[in-house]
Amino acid sequence: MDLSTRGSEMPASPLRRLAALATDAERRGIRVLRLNIGQPDVPTPSEVLEAARAFRGPVLGYGPSDGLPETRAAIAEYLAGVGSPVAPEDVVVTTGASEAILFALSAVCDPGDEVLVIDPLYANYIGFACMAGVRLVPVAASPEDGYRLPLVARLEAAVGPRTRAVLYSSPSNPSGTVLRRDEVAALVDLAARRDLFLLADEVCREFVYDGARLAGALEVATAAGEAGRVVLLDSISKRFSACGARVGWIATTNTDVRDACLRFGQARLCAPTLGQHMAAAGFRALPRFLPPVIDEFRRRRDVVLSALSRIPGAVCPRPEGAFYVMPRLPIDDADAFAAFLLREFSHGGATVLVAPGTGFYATPGQGRHEVRLAYVLGSPALEAAMDLLVRGVEAYAGLTTRGT
Amino acid sequence: MDLSTRGSEMPASPLRRLAALATDAERRGIRVLRLNIGQPDVPTPSEVLEAARAFRGPVLGYGPSDGLPETRAAIAEYLAGVGSPVAPEDVVVTTGASEAILFALSAVCDPGDEVLVIDPLYANYIGFACMAGVRLVPVAASPEDGYRLPLVARLEAAVGPRTRAVLYSSPSNPSGTVLRRDEVAALVDLAARRDLFLLADEVCREFVYDGARLAGALEVATAAGEAGRVVLLDSISKRFSACGARVGWIATTNTDVRDACLRFGQARLCAPTLGQHMAAAGFRALPRFLPPVIDEFRRRRDVVLSALSRIPGAVCPRPEGAFYVMPRLPIDDADAFAAFLLREFSHGGATVLVAPGTGFYATPGQGRHEVRLAYVLGSPALEAAMDLLVRGVEAYAGLTTRGT
Repeated sequence: MDLSTRGSEMPASPLRRLAALATDAERRGIRVLRLNIGQPDVPTPSEVLEAARAFRGPVLGYGPSDGLPETRAAIAEYLAGVGSPVAPEDVVVTTGASEAILFALSAVCDPGDEVLVIDPLYANYIGFACMAGVRLVPVAASPEDGYRLPLVARLEAAVGPRTRAVLYSSPSNPSGTVLRRDEVAALVDLAARRDLFLLADEVCREFVYDGARLAGALEVATAAGEAGRVVLLDSISKRFSACGARVGWIATTNTDVRDACLRFGQARLCAPTLGQHMAAAGFRALPRFLPPVIDEFRRRRDVVLSALSRIPGAVCPRPEGAFYVMPRLPIDDADAFAAFLLREFSHGGATVLVAPGTGFYATPGQGRHEVRLAYVLGSPALEAAMDLLVRGVEAYAGLTTRGT
Repeated sequence: MDLSTRGSEMPASPLRRLAALATDAERRGIRVLRLNIGQPDVPTPSEVLEAARAFRGPVLGYGPSDGLPETRAAIAEYLAGVGSPVAPEDVVVTTGASEAILFALSAVCDPGDEVLVIDPLYANYIGFACMAGVRLVPVAASPEDGYRLPLVARLEAAVGPRTRAVLYSSPSNPSGTVLRRDEVAALVDLAARRDLFLLADEVCREFVYDGARLAGALEVATAAGEAGRVVLLDSISKRFSACGARVGWIATTNTDVRDACLRFGQARLCAPTLGQHMAAAGFRALPRFLPPVIDEFRRRRDVVLSALSRIPGAVCPRPEGAFYVMPRLPIDDADAFAAFLLREFSHGGATVLVAPGTGFYATPGQGRHEVRLAYVLGSPALEAAMDLLVRGVEAYAGLTTRGT
């Protein structure tokens, strides 16, 4: 009664062991400020919650496998408004971006096929690739370069006979880096020359600061006459602070991919019905809801960067988007450091929970000097958390120096 | 830019083409009575809808990847109450039984591994096997034998070196057949002797008639000391008439399987939060809600059987459970017959939509003389639909006889 290889090799969430340590710390009376999970603290817009409450039945039945018509129409209208022209028929509503990623990988890859990713990456790409039997081929980015897209020549050198796609997120989870238009254009050009798909994860597309505007993959590829290579992966989770609704989508003008994803969707019948009503309502609320949220996240980013600048030896690129940063810190082992903060460190009865960088690399051994911080706390908790991080790095450095 | 093989070969829902024909018929002013989809018409219990409405925020956030504690506890308590002892930690909440099936197949099979199924089968097993790269090995049941479990010797003869599990539903979708305790015990024994998992889909477990009680796989295997071989697949969809909530679960005392499913679950973050609140409330409502529903479905089954007995040459086993029957009819081609009903037949301005049997077989070419009927209409619509079916068979027989 052995598990399958994929069942055995499926990675556990890198945050799980630390969650237990955090609970232990709390049992000891220590306040744990959590910067480890990408769960915004922003209240879900009232219109979005109301859309679920407004459901009157009588039967909460299956919806269409490709999504409720009003939800698909709202998504298409939204995408057209941000320069990514798609029709409602180009949208397949999924159970979160999670399912969109799994469907897209399955539609373009068979077991053993390869997908290029940029390291560091969204940790769960590793899990979905394991489930789908897909080999991720990482190409390294680095904090010194602001985690920007590696030179296209380096990406191209990694293309092999079984490479089927490039999968990336912009704004990036975990680094917050936003691809410039010329970088997206270079990806589109690479995809066209090497006959690849672009699986573009834009779940944080609204969270772009300093007046910048995301160059979306569909927008750039449409201008280049290559829209059919792009499979857009997105969700309402961050956008409407509704992670628990589990509603996302695939948008693509590639009718083969769309049709395959619809057939995958037919097997699982439909995405959650109440969540789809919430999504449709959310797009109507977006113009009112979003601007103060963006302002708040930009302020928080600046709080985080300011605190990181107080750590000697830290390298912290200034991220243009998302609500993550991924500094390189003067630490020898990010996992040990994160555990140290929970087990041995506290200041004023509190400590901070961070995500070790190792969980965000497809390349084993990478990320040992980095942590991902999600700035999902408001003032003054965020200032306090960052102060704890600064003190924690100092205490850990003293400890490890004494140890040598 | 080719699709993957699995993307190309993923089957479309067998009901999709007919749905378009039904819409066409309605445009021509014909009333279409639908017996094709397993979507109960029973109103969702008010307590279940209220549980979603009661959510007050402020943030609809991620829940734990293995499910909300109260939902897992409610499921475990329910299972213990029906003789299947599991702890809350043995339960992983999934996005419908759909995700439970995909997780279970992925946990025990690698691409190329085999799973035994009993033909006819729940159509979407074929889709999930395609996604997971698993080969389904069908063993035939037949309407003459009441679609009962084939002799264990026939199942055992199909076990090969790559066979990892038996996947079955009881009560059965599509046939309504309920496995007797001795049949489940024989499956458990086969699994023990040949070192297989039993993937037991019991989503219709409440829908058992004539005072019978389901012999659950966990219950029977526990008595045999083989509980660790069983992976129970279930959902709230039929039980609480809440198909759109997308909440199901895996229950197993096998810690390896549970842990693998949890890791699959971590990649997709969580099941829908509102649906999980609905599930917890539903189990409290079940004792009040369920008995009249069961009575109603039993009455409907009898209406269906009575009408089928009027068709000369029809073979219609008396199903003990679910809300499906799968008669063999005197028709040469179930797909052509279903299309005929929508395109060419009507009586009194109405026709009936049935699911061709071909969609419910893993063996190509099987099911051409069978249709699946879901008795999801109340009186008098069900009587009318069945009368249309009787007349439709007669008209189709006349047509095809004239044609020869």
